[in-house]
Amino acid sequence: MDETVTRLLEKRGVTLSRIADLVFDLQHAYVTGLTREIAEESVHHVLRKREVQNAILTGVALDMLAERDELPEPLLTRVKTDEPLFGMDEVLALAITNVYGSIGLTNYGFVDKMKMGVLDEIHHRQDQVNTFLDDIVAGIAAAAAARLAHDAFGADAGS
Amino acid sequence: MDETVTRLLEKRGVTLSRIADLVFDLQHAYVTGLTREIAEESVHHVLRKREVQNAILTGVALDMLAERDELPEPLLTRVKTDEPLFGMDEVLALAITNVYGSIGLTNYGFVDKMKMGVLDEIHHRQDQVNTFLDDIVAGIAAAAAARLAHDAFGADAGS
Amino acid sequence: MDETVTRLLEKRGVTLSRIADLVFDLQHAYVTGLTREIAEESVHHVLRKREVQNAILTGVALDMLAERDELPEPLLTRVKTDEPLFGMDEVLALAITNVYGSIGLTNYGFVDKMKMGVLDEIHHRQDQVNTFLDDIVAGIAAAAAARLAHDAFGADAGS
Amino acid sequence: MDETVTRLLEKRGVTLSRIADLVFDLQHAYVTGLTREIAEESVHHVLRKREVQNAILTGVALDMLAERDELPEPLLTRVKTDEPLFGMDEVLALAITNVYGSIGLTNYGFVDKMKMGVLDEIHHRQDQVNTFLDDIVAGIAAAAAARLAHDAFGADAGS
Repeated sequence: MDETVTRLLEKRGVTLSRIADLVFDLQHAYVTGLTREIAEESVHHVLRKREVQNAILTGVALDMLAERDELPEPLLTRVKTDEPLFGMDEVLALAITNVYGSIGLTNYGFVDKMKMGVLDEIHHRQDQVNTFLDDIVAGIAAAAAARLAHDAFGADAGS
Repeated sequence: MDETVTRLLEKRGVTLSRIADLVFDLQHAYVTGLTREIAEESVHHVLRKREVQNAILTGVALDMLAERDELPEPLLTRVKTDEPLFGMDEVLALAITNVYGSIGLTNYGFVDKMKMGVLDEIHHRQDQVNTFLDDIVAGIAAAAAARLAHDAFGADAGS
Repeated sequence: MDETVTRLLEKRGVTLSRIADLVFDLQHAYVTGLTREIAEESVHHVLRKREVQNAILTGVALDMLAERDELPEPLLTRVKTDEPLFGMDEVLALAITNVYGSIGLTNYGFVDKMKMGVLDEIHHRQDQVNTFLDDIVAGIAAAAAARLAHDAFGADAGS
Repeated sequence: MDETVTRLLEKRGVTLSRIADLVFDLQHAYVTGLTREIAEESVHHVLRKREVQNAILTGVALDMLAERDELPEPLLTRVKTDEPLFGMDEVLALAITNVYGSIGLTNYGFVDKMKMGVLDEIHHRQDQVNTFLDDIVAGIAAAAAARLAHDAFGADAGS
C-alpha cells in the first residue's frame, strides 16, 4: 500500500528522495550520524501509516479533480486558486504531521512557509494544482523528522 | 455564503432545524432558558465560519463524488464503504468542532457514536454515501453546543 | 518509563485493568476474539508512547497541584472546580487520543460523556481533583481501542 | 480577564506590543494598509478568547512552577530543560493557534522555529523557564495573523 502512495507522489512530481532531503536539512544538526539513507528510511516509515496514506490519497485526489474542473463550485475555485483562507490543506497536513506526536508541528510550519527544496519546485509548476500537495509533503517531512528525533533522544518513544 | 452550505446540507437530507434538535438535546439540561430557536441561531453562527463552510464543502463533495464513482481507487472504496480506519471524516469534523474551542470534542464523539437524531436517519439511507456527512453534522452540532456554553457560562468567549 | 505513569495512574485510583475494561467494552463487538488480556496489552502499548506519558504527567500534576492549592489564580479555581469552559483537559486528551490516528476521536468523546466504568467511580470521588484524570483515561482507552481496530482491519497501520 | 493574561505575559517579559510586531512582520506583505495599531488590536482580540486565556494561564503556570522546582519529577526536568520531545508546549500552542482556524498553523511553526523578534530575546534569558512561553507567544501571533487574513480576504469569517 505504501507503494501506491509513493507512486502517486512521484506522479505529482515528488520523489521520496526529495522528501528525504527536507528531513535531512531539518535534522542533521540535531541527530548525530544522520545520513540521507536514514532520512529516507524514516520517510518510508511515515508512509506506512494508514492515516498518512489516507491524507495523501484524499488531498492529491482533490488537487487532481480541481485540475480537471471536476469539483463543484465554490470548492473548485478555492482549491484551484489555493485560496489563502481555505484551510483544509493545513487540516490534512496536521493529520500527517501528528503521527509521531506534536513535536512535528513547528517543522511543518517552517518547511511549508519557507517553501524549502522540492516545495519551491512544486510551487512554480503551472501545469498542475498543488494546493494540497505542498502541505502534504511538508507534513510528511515534519513527521519523518519527528520520528528521527524520537529515535535519537528517547528510547521508549518507539513505533 | 452560509446559504450555499445550508442548501447543500438540505440537499443531502439535513435541515438546520434537525441539527438544532441535536444541539437542544445536548444543552438544554445545562443552559437555562434554552429554546429550539436559540439552538438554531447557534447553528447559523457556526455555519458562518469560513473553516466550517470549507469543511462542509470538501466533505460533502467527496461523498457525492464517491456516490458517482468519480474518485480514484483506493480512495473510492474507502469513502464508499465508510471504511472504519479511513479517518479523514474525523479529521474534517475536528476542524468544525474546534471553532469554539476544545470543549466541543466530547459532544462530537458522543453525538457521532450514539447516532443521535438525524444521524440515525442518514445512517439508514442506502441511496447516498454519507461517510463525511454524519461526522460533519455531529461536528456542527458540537460546535453550536460549545458556543451556547460559552454564552451561558462566560462573558468574554465571543468571536 | 511506562511504569512511572502506570504507578501514577494507580495512585490516582485507576489501574490499567480498569482502563482495559473500557477498551474491551468499546471494541469487543468489532474485533473477533478480543479478550481482556489483549485489551490490556493494547493499553500498555499506548502508555509506551512518549506523547502519552507527557500528557499524563502534565495533567495529573495539574490535578494534584490544584488539590493542594498550589496553582496560581484564576487557574486554581478553574482546575479545582472542573470549570466547563476550561478546555485544557480536552486539549491534553486529544494529544493522547491521536497517537493511533483520528479514528479514536469519537470513542474518546463517547467514553468521557457517558462516564463509562472507572470514569464513573473517579467522578464520584470527592477526595481528589480529577479535572484532567477523567479525560486522560478516556483518551488512553480511545487510543488503545483505535490500535486494536488498526490491528484487526489493516495490515500496514501498525506502529 | 484579558487584563489578567496581559499582565501575566508582561511579567514574563512579553508585551502585547512585541507580539504585535510579530503579527505585523508576518502580515504586512499580504494585508494592505496594515499598521502596528491594527496588528495590536488583533492581538487583543485573540487574548479575549477563553481558550487562549486558559492555555496561557496553564502554560505560564507550568513554566513558573518548574522555575521554583515545584513540579514533580520526571515532569520537572522535562519542563525545566525544554526537553525536545516533551510536546505539551506545542499541544497548548495548537489550541491557541486554532482559534481562527487552521490557516494559522504554518505561521506558528515559522515564528517558533525562526525565533523571531521577542522570541529570540526570551530564548536567551537564563533567569526564567520559558518552555511554554515561546510556543504560547508564537501561537498568539499566528492566531492574530490569521484573524487579519480573515478580515482582509473574507467577509463572513468573523466570530
